[in-house]
Amino acid sequence: MDAEQLRECGHRMVDFVAVTNPSRPSPSSAKCRHPGYLKELLPDTAPSKPDTLEALFYDIREKIVPGVTHWQSPNYFAYYPSNSSTAGFLGEMLSAAFNIVGFSWITSPAATELEVIVLDWFAKMLRLPSQFLSTALGGGVIQGTASEAVLVVLLAARDRTLRKHGKTSLEKLVVYASDQTHSALQKACQIAGIFPENVRLVKADCDKNYAVAPLAISDAIATDLSSGLIPFFICATVGTTSSSAVDPLPELGQIAKANNMWLHIDAAYAGSACICPEYRHYLNGVEEADSFNMNAHKWFLTNFDCSLLWVKASEENSVFDFKDWQIPLGRCFRSLKLWMVLRLYGVDNLQSHIRKHIELAKHFEQLVISDSRFEVVTPRTFSLVCLRLVPLASDQDNGRKLNYDLMDAANSSGKIFISHTILSGKFVLRFAVGAPLTEEQHINAAWKILQDLATKQLLGSP
Amino acid sequence: MDAEQLRECGHRMVDFVAVTNPSRPSPSSAKCRHPGYLKELLPDTAPSKPDTLEALFYDIREKIVPGVTHWQSPNYFAYYPSNSSTAGFLGEMLSAAFNIVGFSWITSPAATELEVIVLDWFAKMLRLPSQFLSTALGGGVIQGTASEAVLVVLLAARDRTLRKHGKTSLEKLVVYASDQTHSALQKACQIAGIFPENVRLVKADCDKNYAVAPLAISDAIATDLSSGLIPFFICATVGTTSSSAVDPLPELGQIAKANNMWLHIDAAYAGSACICPEYRHYLNGVEEADSFNMNAHKWFLTNFDCSLLWVKASEENSVFDFKDWQIPLGRCFRSLKLWMVLRLYGVDNLQSHIRKHIELAKHFEQLVISDSRFEVVTPRTFSLVCLRLVPLASDQDNGRKLNYDLMDAANSSGKIFISHTILSGKFVLRFAVGAPLTEEQHINAAWKILQDLATKQLLGSP
Repeated sequence: MDAEQLRECGHRMVDFVAVTNPSRPSPSSAKCRHPGYLKELLPDTAPSKPDTLEALFYDIREKIVPGVTHWQSPNYFAYYPSNSSTAGFLGEMLSAAFNIVGFSWITSPAATELEVIVLDWFAKMLRLPSQFLSTALGGGVIQGTASEAVLVVLLAARDRTLRKHGKTSLEKLVVYASDQTHSALQKACQIAGIFPENVRLVKADCDKNYAVAPLAISDAIATDLSSGLIPFFICATVGTTSSSAVDPLPELGQIAKANNMWLHIDAAYAGSACICPEYRHYLNGVEEADSFNMNAHKWFLTNFDCSLLWVKASEENSVFDFKDWQIPLGRCFRSLKLWMVLRLYGVDNLQSHIRKHIELAKHFEQLVISDSRFEVVTPRTFSLVCLRLVPLASDQDNGRKLNYDLMDAANSSGKIFISHTILSGKFVLRFAVGAPLTEEQHINAAWKILQDLATKQLLGSP
Repeated sequence: MDAEQLRECGHRMVDFVAVTNPSRPSPSSAKCRHPGYLKELLPDTAPSKPDTLEALFYDIREKIVPGVTHWQSPNYFAYYPSNSSTAGFLGEMLSAAFNIVGFSWITSPAATELEVIVLDWFAKMLRLPSQFLSTALGGGVIQGTASEAVLVVLLAARDRTLRKHGKTSLEKLVVYASDQTHSALQKACQIAGIFPENVRLVKADCDKNYAVAPLAISDAIATDLSSGLIPFFICATVGTTSSSAVDPLPELGQIAKANNMWLHIDAAYAGSACICPEYRHYLNGVEEADSFNMNAHKWFLTNFDCSLLWVKASEENSVFDFKDWQIPLGRCFRSLKLWMVLRLYGVDNLQSHIRKHIELAKHFEQLVISDSRFEVVTPRTFSLVCLRLVPLASDQDNGRKLNYDLMDAANSSGKIFISHTILSGKFVLRFAVGAPLTEEQHINAAWKILQDLATKQLLGSP
């Protein structure tokens, strides 16, 4: 890059993005709410001659931004958060400036080295057992996403098992998890060639806030063993996608150990909370896990993508070639942004960031409880509240339409954005607090929108 | 992100990166040339309290930058290029500012829509057959890397074949490619559970510049069919990693068609050249392919990662959920940077960019030819020159040590960075032109370094 051109355009882009942070979380204009909207606004072919940066800014402002779902808006409460921050943004800039490809140590020593160091820092923040540190035989690596993390360890477990039982025994391998486990596990199984009928998604226990019952897992394993199948992998979740349930790690660890199975822990969302001493107990039992994963790009102020995976067993090797720890060959300098987040905020502030969102979610939960038309469907654990409008006893679809319409009206307004899930057949609204700019005023405003829409809906609109 | 903080820090980072562009391509200081160097310079744990941006800049300058292999240096000639550019950098900034997760259309309509549009633009620039356009049943998608691209299509082909032959026939599936194919294919086969002994890496034809001979592939298929195996996948390469060889696409297409096999084309590096009419003929035969891949992040001024994959067959669907077209679930707004590169440079300038590097490589090739101590090992096709010091007839290891020492001396100087390969048992130096700032003066200087080192080495150093 020519330094002067980069400097001039870079400054203009900084000014542009500093004012491009809409409070509206989702496309509200009808013109952007249908598939193909952008095709109507852009030409059919790439230009032969250069356009100006000014022309690009115009198109971004007028055509792109209106069609973006703004995950950074303080009024965004859907799915789980995808945090950005000044530090994370600066880290992305620096990483883009280097633009190295660190597939092996030699292709940029600093990239591999910083990753090892920062993952050790993070493991200590989470008080992971020392076997997960690079100083032992384990170590951490940055994956793109939690879905790649679970695939990587599933493949390691698969190949370890096939080496023992013979490579034609693939059809006998069985995977266990709760039915609340992220669908990424099923996708990973499909990629790895695990037979679909050998993926046991055991029904979670609705009396335990949708955590899995260990007995259900051990029963399934016993049945499969007696049928000559080979149980080899358990995936436990800390903070499920639907309702942030926490599976019982110590019991699952014992089951895995007794049966010589790989235990993976997916703490993609809730792992962040465990840097606070008062939430660390949710990781008790991680000692027995073979691998542990959390997404710094969810609720930890680090830009996408930055999914942290630790494994216990790795080859003894003074030089890490991270290409052998992941699905792709190429990889960029992702540790920079995490390092910058840790240094520019510090652990104390990062704990405050987590606590603030959990407090806001508690506040929202109280608001819901105070309105008898609504119910909190399953108790809040972290910063997610699962709620719904209570249907009349006579409501034949158990409030499905009632709550779908409420969500649709809220999202169509463009003022807030929420998502939904299904729990025990109930259509449930998910209100996840976690955008860095969200304050109490946004929670109160969002609640008023939901209340007003409920009033309108229950009375019937004119 | 707080807008004022972002603006202030963003401007400081722009100024920082504008002056952080070393001409030295690789770590030259001894203190950074050993594994573990950075651990000695950084603390063991994350800080509790925030550090200043100034402190970070200091550490980056003094501790990180000296350990970075600078792929953007004009004196970087190793592997294949990994282009950055002002437009690509701005695109990364904008994408980091949005920080959306576009796994489905609704999670950010503009992200999916722009990707479809830009991939159609690119397909037209490459004159890909219309079946690869979104307006037909095909379409393009941005993958992280070429290794993910080949895995995605291998899985699609595997599952199509297993649906036909039964899911227990995995052990019979056979993959074909030349032994010059990127190792990513073998890794993809391992992930997909293809038996290692069913991956046929047919010896490339050294008389055809290391392209594969179609007859060698069809013979292997015939043998396997007669053994009851199921040939299902051919991977052809346009621009191999070792020597930028081009496999004969039309013939391989016929073989694939006759045997109802999937044909994938990996044009990760050389695909960029095919936007120039005079190089487009290297893609002749792409009509018969099922999938085609090229990396915009290699030689196309677009920051890593941005690997473009087109497939012919996709489901009829007016809304694309790109999570179903890739390995991970999550994905960021990668089309922005490619769109900005296409618009801010325009196709004419992008063609000039390619032609300039090819001219520089021709120039380097002539320099090598003019020095009888060296030989060009296989004719140059694009911007890669494969060369070596000619060993004496009496040299028992055929110049391996001679050329390794030359490379090591060149790289250790920190002044240039090159890589190597093995062709027909010969240790060969790879000199790949492609960094955006490389000019004729850098080529001449690099050649002088190699000549001087050769002189010193052949005479023996004192």
